[in-house]
Amino acid sequence: MALVVQKFGGTSVGTLDRIQNVARRALATRAAGHDVVLIVSAMSGETNRLLKLAHETCQIPSERELDVIAATGEQVAAALTALAIQSQGGEARSLLGHQLRVHTDSAFTKARIVRIDGDRIFETVREGKIAVVAGFQGVDPRGNITTLGRGGSDTSAVAVAAAIHADECEIYTDVDGVYTTDPNICPSARKIGRIAYEEMLELASLGAKVLQIRSVELAMKYGVPVHVRSSFSDVTGTWVVKDEETLEDVVVAGVAYDKNEAKAQILEVPDRPGVVAELFGQLSARNVPVDMIIQNTAYGYGDRTDVTFTLAKTDLHRYRGDIEELARKVGGSGVRYDEDVVKVSIVGLGMRSHAGVASKMFGLLAKEGINIQAITTSEIKISCLIAAKYTELAVRALHDGFGLQHASTRDAS
Amino acid sequence: MALVVQKFGGTSVGTLDRIQNVARRALATRAAGHDVVLIVSAMSGETNRLLKLAHETCQIPSERELDVIAATGEQVAAALTALAIQSQGGEARSLLGHQLRVHTDSAFTKARIVRIDGDRIFETVREGKIAVVAGFQGVDPRGNITTLGRGGSDTSAVAVAAAIHADECEIYTDVDGVYTTDPNICPSARKIGRIAYEEMLELASLGAKVLQIRSVELAMKYGVPVHVRSSFSDVTGTWVVKDEETLEDVVVAGVAYDKNEAKAQILEVPDRPGVVAELFGQLSARNVPVDMIIQNTAYGYGDRTDVTFTLAKTDLHRYRGDIEELARKVGGSGVRYDEDVVKVSIVGLGMRSHAGVASKMFGLLAKEGINIQAITTSEIKISCLIAAKYTELAVRALHDGFGLQHASTRDAS
Repeated sequence: MALVVQKFGGTSVGTLDRIQNVARRALATRAAGHDVVLIVSAMSGETNRLLKLAHETCQIPSERELDVIAATGEQVAAALTALAIQSQGGEARSLLGHQLRVHTDSAFTKARIVRIDGDRIFETVREGKIAVVAGFQGVDPRGNITTLGRGGSDTSAVAVAAAIHADECEIYTDVDGVYTTDPNICPSARKIGRIAYEEMLELASLGAKVLQIRSVELAMKYGVPVHVRSSFSDVTGTWVVKDEETLEDVVVAGVAYDKNEAKAQILEVPDRPGVVAELFGQLSARNVPVDMIIQNTAYGYGDRTDVTFTLAKTDLHRYRGDIEELARKVGGSGVRYDEDVVKVSIVGLGMRSHAGVASKMFGLLAKEGINIQAITTSEIKISCLIAAKYTELAVRALHDGFGLQHASTRDAS
Repeated sequence: MALVVQKFGGTSVGTLDRIQNVARRALATRAAGHDVVLIVSAMSGETNRLLKLAHETCQIPSERELDVIAATGEQVAAALTALAIQSQGGEARSLLGHQLRVHTDSAFTKARIVRIDGDRIFETVREGKIAVVAGFQGVDPRGNITTLGRGGSDTSAVAVAAAIHADECEIYTDVDGVYTTDPNICPSARKIGRIAYEEMLELASLGAKVLQIRSVELAMKYGVPVHVRSSFSDVTGTWVVKDEETLEDVVVAGVAYDKNEAKAQILEVPDRPGVVAELFGQLSARNVPVDMIIQNTAYGYGDRTDVTFTLAKTDLHRYRGDIEELARKVGGSGVRYDEDVVKVSIVGLGMRSHAGVASKMFGLLAKEGINIQAITTSEIKISCLIAAKYTELAVRALHDGFGLQHASTRDAS
């Protein structure tokens, strides 16, 4: 008999029929002898409907009141789910953020969980009832309602699982797991059986679609085994676990790509010591989040050189003014932008113990005639910036080049 | 500078435009130098929408979960009202039942307020903010969400006003006050300027349309001056106050009628001592709420008589089986029902000191050829059961017969 946390997202509780499905699944787990704690999101579309009302009422709504409004989405979904369980003959009780309680800081609309009291859950489970916890919400020290930001229900689920020392945390979603790469552009992509927390974090661009990054950080911190799976089937999904549980024979676990990357090139900057340092110091002081930095060699300007870096496209639009002002300040002649770039990355714990992975990656790209514009590496990830038009070609070449199309020991478990 | 509670019902916050109106009114009161506490209901239609979801999910939904769902209606309305105030340049904070806190018993869907903590309201008002309290909701000793039943926001408003010792409690609604009788059937009906709590309670059938009965009881208990008025105009409405403040020169304050009355006649009951007592004892034991009882004289059955009583039509339908079973038990030959009856009542504190009011009422009805089927009296109310077809005729005859068409000293204040 295990203590199982099951989290259902907005699409999984999107209609009353689907809520009945959630109830069926929870009751099946209960019937198998386990104690069950559900975490539910708002019915899909509901949060947007509520926030629209708020924005129609006030152009710049107070974030405190936004949270009061948004939290009702999960409140209704939790109670409806409890009712669905009751309608199928089971026993259930909804529990809200202020009832558990889910203690957070006071950063409305993006609060962080500080602590969760498990008592009310234990009490509910001891009574033989399924506890249905409203995800996404908490209370601050003053009793104000807070929300955890978009996708926060994943974080609620993992935090609850950690607080009650659950045996596992199942995240039910509309995909059936984490894939070795995006199946939409790489037909040989396979579902990953087991993946380490660290890999999942680095695969953000793949993983974020199925699991909120903060929830992975939290799962890693508390060692909560997370099982990402489909709410529409019974097939095993992807387990996100400690690295020692992933069987490290796999060098590369997945290939990710990020289209939200843009390149900014500051032209003809004086090639003097300290200028580049000043530039990036100032960018950092203005909170412009720089990703990759490219060392250009001076090429004929004499005492001038170009300085290139990348940042998220969304950030580029927001900070364009800052960048151009700084370019003038350090004596550059202008800024050139390129949004037609993409960052492809390979991720894998096995890189830590395998040499030659980077050169193999560069070779695979070169073989396809793809020019690498910039490179960054971490212990378990290598990223290359390339022209956006090569995205699919690069992903497929890397995926199959590292043998990800073949079943691995990680699938077996 | 006064401390003013203003309550707005579902129609008053039924659209975002109307919520802006509520904000305008609250800010005008604030600008006049008063501290303002708002109590809001759910946007009209919202509670029904939410309860429909619940009933579609579970045929016999748990009342605990119903309250969790229903309470979100007021939660959203309170936050939207706070945002509307902010959008007009004011400061406001929404406060929910569990934040105040509004302590209730655990009778879900019809909870009773035990105590309200005023601290959070005082703190909000001290900060110069308008407190917007979600009506209709509270928390029980375990932190479960409770609701006060339909119309409970009136009760919330009066209870909050009592808890914070507000100078007045304004109830904004879609009518502009309490009338001497139903203006729809009596064109000479006038708006009452001041009415005593006791009169308001007895005028239930008139008053219930504008003010929940429990809220009047509470206002009477704590001496909260209540001002019932229209949210769509600035005209003074009706003040509901202590009897010594109503100027008792008026004998009859209003004429009410109740169409939800039905007559049940148990036929040929043995005319022995104790039989009638047993019958009503048993009805009471089964919680059948009997209103009037009619003493028939035996008329030719010899040792048998008919026993007639009235009860609410809705109760008649619910308890018909019980009534017929009891009729058999006491030896009656059957039950005859009459739903074509109405109860007309005159209400007024002045009756306590004026003789001859009852005989004047009977005379006014007799003059119109209306037969009185049953009579009940209390210290400040006399009711007659008549055939339903005479409703309008009787109400007009009583209204003008007691001079209610003329302005009185109660209008002056």
